[in-house]
Amino acid sequence: MTARGLFISFEGGDGAGKSTQSRLLGQWLEESFGAEVVRTREPGGTSLGRTLRELVLHGEDVEPRTEALLYATDRAHHVASLIRPALDRGAVVITDRYLDSSLAYQAGGRELDPTQLRELQLWAVGGLVPDVTILLDLDPALLPQRLTGAPDRLERAGDDFHRRTRDAYLALAAAEPERWRVIDASGGIEEIAGQVRAAVAPLIGART
Amino acid sequence: MTARGLFISFEGGDGAGKSTQSRLLGQWLEESFGAEVVRTREPGGTSLGRTLRELVLHGEDVEPRTEALLYATDRAHHVASLIRPALDRGAVVITDRYLDSSLAYQAGGRELDPTQLRELQLWAVGGLVPDVTILLDLDPALLPQRLTGAPDRLERAGDDFHRRTRDAYLALAAAEPERWRVIDASGGIEEIAGQVRAAVAPLIGART
Repeated sequence: MTARGLFISFEGGDGAGKSTQSRLLGQWLEESFGAEVVRTREPGGTSLGRTLRELVLHGEDVEPRTEALLYATDRAHHVASLIRPALDRGAVVITDRYLDSSLAYQAGGRELDPTQLRELQLWAVGGLVPDVTILLDLDPALLPQRLTGAPDRLERAGDDFHRRTRDAYLALAAAEPERWRVIDASGGIEEIAGQVRAAVAPLIGART
Repeated sequence: MTARGLFISFEGGDGAGKSTQSRLLGQWLEESFGAEVVRTREPGGTSLGRTLRELVLHGEDVEPRTEALLYATDRAHHVASLIRPALDRGAVVITDRYLDSSLAYQAGGRELDPTQLRELQLWAVGGLVPDVTILLDLDPALLPQRLTGAPDRLERAGDDFHRRTRDAYLALAAAEPERWRVIDASGGIEEIAGQVRAAVAPLIGART
């Protein structure tokens, strides 16, 4: 899959600390290993992706199939123009969300066939899956206090939706334990960061 | 597939007369049969689609997989929000381009696997294919004189590309003769319009 680099994705609900932990992990990899670290996110990791992100999060309501395709389009371009070139030159790529977000949010929360959805997303990325995926797992009941700013469309979708999404994430992690690390995201930032480093360290060792 | 209406698509290269013939056919169906006619086009038949159309035709260069997904996204939304509701209420829908455009332009002209591309496009539209597809077939050598305005990205792609696309269209038509009608588009507007009417008339009869 990955040519020479290391591909790490963070997953979990909004407000679980993905962007904070992604930043702290990146700093640690740069400072401790001298790695080239590329931090990015979905949707919206590219210029075209930012247009698509606006359409997905703040545009008119679209049916689930169209929504899945918008995310797949963003992801295909993200992989082709940013992620794969970085991996090919040996960088560490850390992305805040990747294809598991589509599987958890759409297959878990809405009405698409999970197998077809997975095939679509895998086709979009040419089969590129992360070396390790870190799930920052948080009880949705703890979410509202953590969120800041105006809620977007997904955030307004309600508690049931967030519970189904969490269950879907945990099911994805259970189905592929060799790729996923599930970390309790209710603790302190430094405590979680330590667990994230512990999850990633063996992969660094194996590559250097 | 279609509930009660009639679904007609026009295909062919730019400059072959698709929008003119689509308009003339629509007028004839309204005047002669009192049909409700919905004329539309791809890409860009909806508000979301117009944003995607801009991205496809005038945005940054994207790799073929991303381009296929942009078209599929536009098409999924086009079907869900406009085409299927119109067919459900018994209207005639005439679209200037539909999923065969993606198959002809991308599978014919570029490097994606045709079977996967077809599966993607069929998934996007939930399996909805036209009742009849009219190919306005024109030798690419006759194209430059017909085009007006500034060329977009596809139009600049060169003669080879247009020849491969035409060949791909003819192959699609040959593979599904019950759905396709191939009409020589080098004749006069009224002559072509007569052939289009002759191709569609039996379907009207069968439904009324």
